[in-house]
Amino acid sequence: MPRPLNLIVLGTAGAGKSALTATFGKWIEQNTDQKVAYINLDPGCDFVPFEPDFDIRDYFTIAQIMRDESLGPNGAMVRASEMLEQRAGEFSKQINEIEADIRLIDTPGQMEVFLFHGGPEIAKLMEGVTISLFLTDAEVAAKATGLVFTRLLGLSIGLRLGVPAISVLNKIDLAQGKLAEIDRMLADAELLKERVVKESSGVMIDLTLGLSRVLPDLLPAARVVKASAKTGEGMRELYDIVHEVFCACGDLT
Amino acid sequence: MPRPLNLIVLGTAGAGKSALTATFGKWIEQNTDQKVAYINLDPGCDFVPFEPDFDIRDYFTIAQIMRDESLGPNGAMVRASEMLEQRAGEFSKQINEIEADIRLIDTPGQMEVFLFHGGPEIAKLMEGVTISLFLTDAEVAAKATGLVFTRLLGLSIGLRLGVPAISVLNKIDLAQGKLAEIDRMLADAELLKERVVKESSGVMIDLTLGLSRVLPDLLPAARVVKASAKTGEGMRELYDIVHEVFCACGDLT
Repeated sequence: MPRPLNLIVLGTAGAGKSALTATFGKWIEQNTDQKVAYINLDPGCDFVPFEPDFDIRDYFTIAQIMRDESLGPNGAMVRASEMLEQRAGEFSKQINEIEADIRLIDTPGQMEVFLFHGGPEIAKLMEGVTISLFLTDAEVAAKATGLVFTRLLGLSIGLRLGVPAISVLNKIDLAQGKLAEIDRMLADAELLKERVVKESSGVMIDLTLGLSRVLPDLLPAARVVKASAKTGEGMRELYDIVHEVFCACGDLT
Repeated sequence: MPRPLNLIVLGTAGAGKSALTATFGKWIEQNTDQKVAYINLDPGCDFVPFEPDFDIRDYFTIAQIMRDESLGPNGAMVRASEMLEQRAGEFSKQINEIEADIRLIDTPGQMEVFLFHGGPEIAKLMEGVTISLFLTDAEVAAKATGLVFTRLLGLSIGLRLGVPAISVLNKIDLAQGKLAEIDRMLADAELLKERVVKESSGVMIDLTLGLSRVLPDLLPAARVVKASAKTGEGMRELYDIVHEVFCACGDLT
């Protein structure tokens, strides 16, 4: 990978973003010759399981905003995202100066706030090729509507940040009995459709059918990776698909 | 509207959920003969601008969880959602007992946590017809990719909760100069496509084109309402579209 590759690690609160950032980074360092840098953009975390080369908490934290501006947690998070947005130029300049082949970027616990404020600006200002990883709990994807929901959110995120998204079903160690079923639904669009219809209520059938019809074209099943930040499973598969998307981007940009 | 109608008011942090709940409720009370009940499911808010008939804060609050379990704000929000999920049966039973024609349900600031835990269970257990309102900032929808993003998120939410979703572009008082452009993009799929292509980067063109092709079928433009919780604009339009979707649901369920 010749130019810096930025991997923005996104996911809902509790999906295991920081753990995956640490595990995937370590795997890359041990199994390839790529130099990894770690970026923490979450001002609300207590600790991160990696040593950050850039840490937003050096500038502000949620706890400090709550104290200084007498805000509740909700308000402080919105405020933090606004600060990220306003200072996106300054922060991305700092990040761009970090020498690395791959920059792993951990993001705020509250994904939606980041997607509305700060995220798009940072993604745009980052030098090199940028790809996002969208983490959800594998448990959610074990239901057909959950799987469609996950892929649809992945699509939305990619669109919002203007970069390709890879869906990562994390915590597969906790969902072992359900992985075969997830694979079957990913491989067989007809089966997924059947399942979705069975799970949906009357008024939602049209929508869910429409979605299952178009999703395979919009987000290839190959872009869904099963992994565990805890056990390290799926790291090679994740690296391979990242590499593949990176090369496809490299041809186009 | 013969049976209770549940309106789940969703939206990203800062989108104005509580304000819209209050304004829309008051509008319904003043302009129709419908009896309104107010439900607060946000354990993280400091105050709500309506008088709740059911308040989740009577059971737990984010601040209290932070203290009792020594958690940071991120952890406390995840924990609160798990508690909402576990006690969904108890809470929805209480809510179902509140006599009203329309129940307005305000939800946690962190939409994504609610969507993954608690939200689907509550939506399923609510008696009557349930519809969700998905609020975003009108400012976001003034860009073509923002508009597509908003509609896609609305779709995802509807799918996840298993109920129809109406997209509400809130805070139009702050985006007056951009409303005509939003209307044009909503009405003219070709124009929206052009704009999206112009705003997108090279690698995202295929995805965005694919999305703008399928979106009009999946989520009708008519399901996007422009409103202001602050000035009260758009409340009648919102009521009309809610009524329309309610009747369509009534025919099917």
